[in-house]
Amino acid sequence: MSGFLGFCNEKNMSLLTDFYELAMCASYFDNKKLELATFDLFIRNMPKNRSYFMFAGLEQVLLFLKNVRFTNEHLVYLKKQGFHSDFLDYLENFRFSGDVWALPEGSIAFQNEPLIRITAPIIEAQIIETFLLNTINLQTMITTKASRIVKVAKGKPVIEFGLRREHGIDAGMKVARCSFIAGCEGTSNVLAGKKYGIPVFGTMAHSFIMSYKQEIDAFRAFTRTFPERTTLLIDTYDEITGLANAILVAKELEKSGYKLGGVRLDSGDLVKTSKKVREKLDNNDLNYVNIFASGDLDEFRIADLLENSARIDCFGVGTKLGTSADRPYINVVYKLCEIMDEKGNFSPIMKLSEGKSTLPGRKQVHRFKDNRGYFDYDIIGLQEENLPGDPLLEKVMEKGELTYDLPSLTVIRKYAKEAFQKLPNKYKILKNAPEYPVRLSQTLENLTRNLTVNLRNKINLPN
Amino acid sequence: MSGFLGFCNEKNMSLLTDFYELAMCASYFDNKKLELATFDLFIRNMPKNRSYFMFAGLEQVLLFLKNVRFTNEHLVYLKKQGFHSDFLDYLENFRFSGDVWALPEGSIAFQNEPLIRITAPIIEAQIIETFLLNTINLQTMITTKASRIVKVAKGKPVIEFGLRREHGIDAGMKVARCSFIAGCEGTSNVLAGKKYGIPVFGTMAHSFIMSYKQEIDAFRAFTRTFPERTTLLIDTYDEITGLANAILVAKELEKSGYKLGGVRLDSGDLVKTSKKVREKLDNNDLNYVNIFASGDLDEFRIADLLENSARIDCFGVGTKLGTSADRPYINVVYKLCEIMDEKGNFSPIMKLSEGKSTLPGRKQVHRFKDNRGYFDYDIIGLQEENLPGDPLLEKVMEKGELTYDLPSLTVIRKYAKEAFQKLPNKYKILKNAPEYPVRLSQTLENLTRNLTVNLRNKINLPN
Repeated sequence: MSGFLGFCNEKNMSLLTDFYELAMCASYFDNKKLELATFDLFIRNMPKNRSYFMFAGLEQVLLFLKNVRFTNEHLVYLKKQGFHSDFLDYLENFRFSGDVWALPEGSIAFQNEPLIRITAPIIEAQIIETFLLNTINLQTMITTKASRIVKVAKGKPVIEFGLRREHGIDAGMKVARCSFIAGCEGTSNVLAGKKYGIPVFGTMAHSFIMSYKQEIDAFRAFTRTFPERTTLLIDTYDEITGLANAILVAKELEKSGYKLGGVRLDSGDLVKTSKKVREKLDNNDLNYVNIFASGDLDEFRIADLLENSARIDCFGVGTKLGTSADRPYINVVYKLCEIMDEKGNFSPIMKLSEGKSTLPGRKQVHRFKDNRGYFDYDIIGLQEENLPGDPLLEKVMEKGELTYDLPSLTVIRKYAKEAFQKLPNKYKILKNAPEYPVRLSQTLENLTRNLTVNLRNKINLPN
Repeated sequence: MSGFLGFCNEKNMSLLTDFYELAMCASYFDNKKLELATFDLFIRNMPKNRSYFMFAGLEQVLLFLKNVRFTNEHLVYLKKQGFHSDFLDYLENFRFSGDVWALPEGSIAFQNEPLIRITAPIIEAQIIETFLLNTINLQTMITTKASRIVKVAKGKPVIEFGLRREHGIDAGMKVARCSFIAGCEGTSNVLAGKKYGIPVFGTMAHSFIMSYKQEIDAFRAFTRTFPERTTLLIDTYDEITGLANAILVAKELEKSGYKLGGVRLDSGDLVKTSKKVREKLDNNDLNYVNIFASGDLDEFRIADLLENSARIDCFGVGTKLGTSADRPYINVVYKLCEIMDEKGNFSPIMKLSEGKSTLPGRKQVHRFKDNRGYFDYDIIGLQEENLPGDPLLEKVMEKGELTYDLPSLTVIRKYAKEAFQKLPNKYKILKNAPEYPVRLSQTLENLTRNLTVNLRNKINLPN
């Protein structure tokens, strides 16, 4: 009866992996392949209607790397799956001992740029792949989506309301975290509020209204409990009669020295209704009462509402933010880019598969700014190159130990805001934004070309 | 440094809720509103390209209801959020004491049909809303998506491979569970294998091949560790040279008394390549070697591959299954349908909002079959009616205690298979399937009509 969820804890994350990671590692171990290797975690291409990424998830990745272990219970299970006892002995003492370079959370990033770079014995670097991809896919996807929504809301507060449709418990928590990083004012998720210190918000459901004989009884009951700055949901039966009841209650509250916070619209034609509601509120000297809108909102609908001069002061955005509904995944991948040879030198590695080729060597990303400080273009080069732009990847872990002070969520949020301000506006439009220029350094381009020729020769393909 | 995940445990699930649930409950408590109420959990409409749902998630819902508690730590946090101490005292002793009726997991369901029906004191029934929606949304959405994929694969095994792009840790676990319910043969997720007893599968990544100087060295190394029924990934550099190497290794394995299990294709034109690969394998007397395909698959691509006679024996389906990518949410809602009045009688309740109206009263769903035993149509009626079809909702919890033996995952899977077989094929086509008939009983229709008139009169709207 117990354990419906408790197995999703830190202790078990070593097994939250694709079986093939363990199979490959068993074979590496068996074949005494223990050399150092470097892997890049990057996003292969920009999805439709995305022209930048806002990177997030590093904190969870680093805590995973610091804590990943195999328990006896895991080893018993793996033995049953056919793994040899030598390899299981190795796993028993497994620690991640590698070096990690990464972008700070909240950074703006683009296609093909390493977001996290891992150098470690190949077994260690391989075994962690799935967890890293799962974490960065979710968090970077949501942070990016949320930043688009916050941007089009033009300074009006956005609250993340999607818990009921987010994909399970962990997604519910991480969506709240990521939305806050991207500039949302808060979340409806109480546990996320408690865990991350994010402000929590909420109004009332239609059921609350319906549980009373009269709508006004429900409004009065609710403001009795929460007299201060309450928001009343006015569209359960009809927005206009609902508004009349809200106005009545607002006037009653005034007599007791309180102010109604707002009214909420959750259905219907939000442009038309919000204008009507604003007018009636103002005609009743209730210009301090805000209009809060929700119901199937995303960046496209909010842009549309504001273009049509909807009189909305605050947006509650749920499902379409919390699932990144127009594009519920990003093509984040984790690819081998160099490996140590017998002599102890690193050899660059690349992959040729059609449409899935990769960049070889240990890389760094350099960002170049224009004379007003805006991002102009990036160059991906080799770590050893001395390129003039700002290097984006920072060392965050050395020999398995954190060398980086994990910033607070507020610091990450501020960093994200500043980074986003430096991205030129043309990349922030919702559809058909131009592609931000990401180039290769001459050295990396030459290396890629030479390796391609070598590989094609080796397998007798035309160059 | 600790706690990057540990807070996502059973103990904390009471706070995994929208703030407004707690606010409404505080107000109910304050206003001494403690009467019994009934809520329906249902899906408002069929999403595009869906013509049925396969219901899942009940086990997690019931375990949540059995275990939901507020700890001292929660109460301290809620106090800071402005909740009164009387209400916090109530929460300290909170137990769910209601009755629950539900469909068994694996059931086939349709729009507007109650999937779970809760009768409890209104605070208890309200406070659990968000968790129920979050759980049923994810699991029913994924089970439905997986059943479509399994169906078009026409008996060829489908393995769920999506962990790296599923939305966080809990989604990773539940997608594996739901895919198995819907008929997938297994998952790549090792922790799901361990937790749920689902078979786990995996081959190798391109990085494994690339870490060796020659592809054939990688194949030999891998089969040294796993000589039995191994699958080799052949498209790292070029499928045809990869296949030649795989054939070499298969012949070497034969000499040692082993058989190669399969070759895997992960990119390129799968129709063309799989035919070429099949031919070469057969020409080398390797007709026992299977062809395993992966890479951006979903029900539409698999249908297309099989229509074009691709020679594929097994499908690995990842991202698009694990995120239900074409539709990453369902419109699952939780609505009040009756409440007890002062005299102890239940009054039916409904909501009128434009496009969001609900059905009043305590309901049951009856399924009518044709003379061959196939599902013909459903009628939603009131619980008290004696309709001839099979009633779908079963009592699973009484006064907060389970009255239902939670079936094993294998039993649920079998139940789902049998239910799906009774759904006529016309509802299983991928696009533009007809709408399955869901009607209201005469009694429910009359009740709905009368209540609508009453409500409209009350708020002076035209009927």
